Amino acid sequence: MLAAHYAGNRTMAVGAAEQAPPGPGQVQIAVAYNGICGTDLHILNGHMDARVATPAVIGHEMSGTIAALGDDVDGWNVGDPVTVMPLAWDGTCPACRAGNSHICQNLDFVGIDSPGALQGRWNVDANLLVPLPASLSLQHAALVEPTAVAVHDVRRAELEKGQKAVVIGGGPIGVLIAAVARSFGGEVVVIELDPKRRKAIADLGYTVLDPRDDTVAWVEEWTGGAGADVVFEVSGAAAAVLGAVDYAKVRGTLVVVAIHPEPRPINLQRVFWRELRLLGARVYQRDDFDTAVALLATGAIPADALITKTVPLHDVQSAFDDLTGGDAMKILIDVQAGQETA
Amino acid sequence: MLAAHYAGNRTMAVGAAEQAPPGPGQVQIAVAYNGICGTDLHILNGHMDARVATPAVIGHEMSGTIAALGDDVDGWNVGDPVTVMPLAWDGTCPACRAGNSHICQNLDFVGIDSPGALQGRWNVDANLLVPLPASLSLQHAALVEPTAVAVHDVRRAELEKGQKAVVIGGGPIGVLIAAVARSFGGEVVVIELDPKRRKAIADLGYTVLDPRDDTVAWVEEWTGGAGADVVFEVSGAAAAVLGAVDYAKVRGTLVVVAIHPEPRPINLQRVFWRELRLLGARVYQRDDFDTAVALLATGAIPADALITKTVPLHDVQSAFDDLTGGDAMKILIDVQAGQETA
Ligand SMILES: [Zn+2]
Ligand SMILES: [Zn+2]
Repeated sequence: MLAAHYAGNRTMAVGAAEQAPPGPGQVQIAVAYNGICGTDLHILNGHMDARVATPAVIGHEMSGTIAALGDDVDGWNVGDPVTVMPLAWDGTCPACRAGNSHICQNLDFVGIDSPGALQGRWNVDANLLVPLPASLSLQHAALVEPTAVAVHDVRRAELEKGQKAVVIGGGPIGVLIAAVARSFGGEVVVIELDPKRRKAIADLGYTVLDPRDDTVAWVEEWTGGAGADVVFEVSGAAAAVLGAVDYAKVRGTLVVVAIHPEPRPINLQRVFWRELRLLGARVYQRDDFDTAVALLATGAIPADALITKTVPLHDVQSAFDDLTGGDAMKILIDVQAGQETA
Repeated sequence: MLAAHYAGNRTMAVGAAEQAPPGPGQVQIAVAYNGICGTDLHILNGHMDARVATPAVIGHEMSGTIAALGDDVDGWNVGDPVTVMPLAWDGTCPACRAGNSHICQNLDFVGIDSPGALQGRWNVDANLLVPLPASLSLQHAALVEPTAVAVHDVRRAELEKGQKAVVIGGGPIGVLIAAVARSFGGEVVVIELDPKRRKAIADLGYTVLDPRDDTVAWVEEWTGGAGADVVFEVSGAAAAVLGAVDYAKVRGTLVVVAIHPEPRPINLQRVFWRELRLLGARVYQRDDFDTAVALLATGAIPADALITKTVPLHDVQSAFDDLTGGDAMKILIDVQAGQETA
């Protein structure tokens, strides 16, 4: 089979790899599509070399069908369409014992800490499988994982029907959060610097603001002087973090979705004055995955608009380069392409 | 009567003042004691001159007895011991309509935005009154307001019986939070830089750590590797804010109690990784006042240890100066002293 691996030095290498049979409790998945996310870009750019040992087959936003069953696997059949919730927890740490196994203190994020989906056949523990309905295309199903992130963010915010949300940053996760928030009955405005992205998001039916305009005054008027119920910080920019609290109502919620590797200045005076709530949100829980599948299957997620293009596995390096350039939203790797000749 | 007012230029002036009768719906209180808090010091130091017009009679941590009733006041009698919850809201703004009138968007904080308790007779709206039990001394009752702040902070954190809390900063509010958290069934450790304060807090039966020791490792061991359920940031120091998240368990809570006039760097990577919750907490609600009265009446609050001394009204300037020096915890002003001759 063919596999793509991070080889260090900003390089994704594609080559033939050994195809092992699934172990006990595992299934072997014929991977169909794999999306590339911001974390994958961080890996490519060497930011996670302390955590990722090369060569590393990465990839965790995937879809496929079951190709083979290992011993002791019940309830699954060859040919079943599936995706994977790529979290393996220890079940014994304080976080797991308190019911927060999704952020286990010794979490194995499959596709980062252990081999991922950028390979023709992928062996994973059957308990990580998430079934897909036949009505959901495998291309759209490659968006289940990032959609589950967005579902988790919106659930964490406890956004209620009729509430108003500001999404700062209109990249793939920002758009997914907007779509999930709207599907949950929220009203959404997206703030995005890039004019091309603003146009694309407006074409999806969202109100989009330019952060260089007086967005605080706009939100103030939109909310009748109250401020937004929830603010999602998805941009990763320090200035956005500093300004995010200005959109929030008294007792409003700010969810920090973006990764901020450096400590960021926060206006604690405003947090105090309005009794704001700032929440960290990381990955997802099983319910979030199930909801993500349902939202994609019902068309609530603008999957086609998010998938800029789909390229064959041997073009994986160019896909990473295009994403680094910032023009693309989501690029899928067609992992099936070329497998028959490998 | 005698009144003390902030006269600008770091000066508290004491002098004779006109004694007006209580208006309709008001009572006139013979003020007994008034505590001085950090906000009063900020006023004295000119930091709030944009908000406080001189001459300003300030003071809001008080106790007294009803001296006279205005028209249309029911349910109160001359001689009743009382304190005041010094918040006047408009009842019409979005925050009030959403049930958060204690942080009304147009809040009048009585004693800052309107005249306070550092006067022999104080006229206040009867709906701000909080009854005191006869068993509670009027000196201890001057601690009801800051105790209500601490109750509000602990309630906001949703600290449950048996949970573990770290209190960063062992000043009056830090000690009150520790006492309230313990009375709610929590286990508490206090982190305090000043050795004299450390000794005083240890004498009250609390574990106290020096922040220059490896406090993170200590909390890690104390909590069996989990981290603390709740962290209260009461120090106001930028370094404390940055380090506070390191004490918190997965999904733990950090309550920002101290005032931070400048934006502070926050380790959002840690907030994300552990899905932490950071909460602003400001003033109190009526329930918090009632609980504070009950805790003081039952001796759960170390009132005598907190009250460094009580000085007569004409020594108000020296009281402010002593507090600025940092040696005293809480200084009460005896507002009754000298009134009979004024
Ligand atoms: Zn665990
Ligand atoms: Zn109001």
